[in-house]
Amino acid sequence: MKLFVKELPNHYNENISFQGFVDKIRDLQYVQFMILRDSTGKVQVTIEKNEENKKLNEIVSSITLESTVKVEGKLLESPSVKMGGMEIIPSDIIVTSKSLNELPFDYKSKDNSLRETRLDYRFIDLRREENNLFFKCETLFEHAFREYCINNGFMEIHSPKIGKKAAESGAEVFKLDYFGQEATLSQSPQFYKQMAMASGFDKVFEIGPAFRAENSHTSYHATEINMADIEISWIDSVEEVMDMEEKVLKYALSKVKEKYGEEIKKHFKSEIGDLSVKFPRITFKEAKEILKEKYHYIGEKEEDFERKEEMLLCKYAKEKYNSDFIFVTKFPFSARPFYHMLDENGLTESYDLLYRGVEITTGAQREHRVDILEKQMIEKEINPRELDYYLDFFKYGCPPHGGYAIGIARIMMQTFNIDNIREATFIYRGPTRLNP
Amino acid sequence: MKLFVKELPNHYNENISFQGFVDKIRDLQYVQFMILRDSTGKVQVTIEKNEENKKLNEIVSSITLESTVKVEGKLLESPSVKMGGMEIIPSDIIVTSKSLNELPFDYKSKDNSLRETRLDYRFIDLRREENNLFFKCETLFEHAFREYCINNGFMEIHSPKIGKKAAESGAEVFKLDYFGQEATLSQSPQFYKQMAMASGFDKVFEIGPAFRAENSHTSYHATEINMADIEISWIDSVEEVMDMEEKVLKYALSKVKEKYGEEIKKHFKSEIGDLSVKFPRITFKEAKEILKEKYHYIGEKEEDFERKEEMLLCKYAKEKYNSDFIFVTKFPFSARPFYHMLDENGLTESYDLLYRGVEITTGAQREHRVDILEKQMIEKEINPRELDYYLDFFKYGCPPHGGYAIGIARIMMQTFNIDNIREATFIYRGPTRLNP
Repeated sequence: MKLFVKELPNHYNENISFQGFVDKIRDLQYVQFMILRDSTGKVQVTIEKNEENKKLNEIVSSITLESTVKVEGKLLESPSVKMGGMEIIPSDIIVTSKSLNELPFDYKSKDNSLRETRLDYRFIDLRREENNLFFKCETLFEHAFREYCINNGFMEIHSPKIGKKAAESGAEVFKLDYFGQEATLSQSPQFYKQMAMASGFDKVFEIGPAFRAENSHTSYHATEINMADIEISWIDSVEEVMDMEEKVLKYALSKVKEKYGEEIKKHFKSEIGDLSVKFPRITFKEAKEILKEKYHYIGEKEEDFERKEEMLLCKYAKEKYNSDFIFVTKFPFSARPFYHMLDENGLTESYDLLYRGVEITTGAQREHRVDILEKQMIEKEINPRELDYYLDFFKYGCPPHGGYAIGIARIMMQTFNIDNIREATFIYRGPTRLNP
Repeated sequence: MKLFVKELPNHYNENISFQGFVDKIRDLQYVQFMILRDSTGKVQVTIEKNEENKKLNEIVSSITLESTVKVEGKLLESPSVKMGGMEIIPSDIIVTSKSLNELPFDYKSKDNSLRETRLDYRFIDLRREENNLFFKCETLFEHAFREYCINNGFMEIHSPKIGKKAAESGAEVFKLDYFGQEATLSQSPQFYKQMAMASGFDKVFEIGPAFRAENSHTSYHATEINMADIEISWIDSVEEVMDMEEKVLKYALSKVKEKYGEEIKKHFKSEIGDLSVKFPRITFKEAKEILKEKYHYIGEKEEDFERKEEMLLCKYAKEKYNSDFIFVTKFPFSARPFYHMLDENGLTESYDLLYRGVEITTGAQREHRVDILEKQMIEKEINPRELDYYLDFFKYGCPPHGGYAIGIARIMMQTFNIDNIREATFIYRGPTRLNP
């Protein structure tokens, strides 16, 4: 079993075997220092230059950076060694893989290389310390997200990603050949998480891929994204969906803050905000009034927000409530899909959640009464017959329900102050990027 | 916030609001009983027939089964009520959705309806108590699987499902149109989890969809499956991969056994076996000898197993070691992909894990030395140039590593004694099934 750097302090004065990447070498007149790296840290290997060490000295002299080695030797506590106050005195060094002399780019300093080169060699780019930290935090965020759900009685679903070509499948849907018939890739588990409600699953979540055939080249679009989806039954209003989203986000972000807050500050100059503050909630109408009166800004879209408005609303939430988040509710039906429930004024029982200037979630109570649902489809010029399988879900009893979806990369970008989704995705997919 | 049946015993003698599906109605001369159901259980609502209750009596008389209702009323502890020793005496009943009178099939007794009908209306089929239990257990299994990984320092990855058309993409790969170029759907995260090793992620897991364009109509094939993938670095041999798989499976199955063991026994006539037993490990050669000598069985394939042989080997493991699992190691290279590492005899450092008669996992140490990897590709008649992006992963230092993949439905089927993958998948996809 591999010993990790962070475990080493439990093994002082023992003969150990340690494996890692060669991070750095200093080859001096009387001594060689080789710094080894794993995902938990770095450790120094110290080799005196002498007759006895001849074989080891030669290995270290000829080894290339980024090669991987296995070192057998004694671990000493050495307070004078800056790196962790310890060092390994090796009796043997085995090169387990040898790196080419020159890397395609200098991955340690992000700014010295083109992004496209870094993406071509993403496997090297990911070696950078910040990237390691980022994906550790994403892992923890997702795990905490699921943990909250599991502890609150949710079931996990895995909805199919291949489906029938449907009415709503416009240009933004990928099409594939499915044994001779045309099928499509799922843009969202929306219909299937609602189906789970009709199945009596009560509360479900899914974290999985969603596919968008948008020919967009912006810094926050990707053709394949990782989505977290939630749906809950038996709600009395959309407020319960918002309550739940607020709780799960606070739970997950506080876990990340607790464990990695300091490192995030150091590497990303970003701080996770005060999570004890209740997320403010304002209506769409109020939001437009605030934008007009406080910021003298009137957006181009009357029935939705543009980016600038989202930024101003977040500024408002921060200044007035010290909140990085703000819920905006009651969007006009024209800006929403057919399945959002309407209130007595014809406004949707829906919301957006904005976070540090960007919309990260759309949520809503869904219309579960089949006759009204059909009416709303027709209003949106969708032929109900093309979605008959979906309408069926509501014909044999279906609880009142609602839910939301959140793009994991989006919330991570805002948390880490990362301005491009290409940097916040394990392997990015865009219209002109299919590799690696 | 919805009160769930299992929480009700904390609310005796309170005025509560309860929502559920109408599971059953008994309309007697002087009293009506309405049984309501949620995902945690059932509760009785008792309505005396009298002048005061006239409105409620009428609602109950006219309501259809499987409709959803909201009941306001008083919860009484009533030891004489068989169902949980409690009942709700309602002051109001609101029908929140009305079911059509007749369901497409009688979902409560699985055997009275065709499987295809049940799959057409999967959302109703999933209401069956066993299905609810099954997906609760799957949820717990996956969560425990991830929990084990997280607690042991793994990172979670989400590898892309859309990729370039590659050499290995034969008939079994779905092809799609990707902005004018041909792309394929991922059959496995294999290459990308190996890439994570080259990125220094050390230990990764992924649970996500994998796609197989096989025109198979068997009881254990699907075109879209949910896979758990694992990869770990710095191993000295494949034995470490097997150790880790054994641990994570025991951890996850013991969590399921602890919480749902009794219910599984009741509903599925299946018992999760003794998890304290070490999984036996035999070589492929030994396995063939056992089959021949103990069971007088010689399979048709010299370099692999057929189903019957897997069953006999599991019988052997059960009888000799009281183990439901058995590892078979050292498969011939001809039965394995090019990237499995070979030992000094030309056998692969790989294994299959068999469970109750079926192979559920293939694992291996991977060849991480680029020159040998290329040689093995050529031996398998794969043009290295077509996998250049993959070969790149090994050129700039790559730790020795190994891992495995496991189909979640497959292990769940064996655990629950379910004989068809269609019954063990939230929504099944096969060559002739794209709905719902």
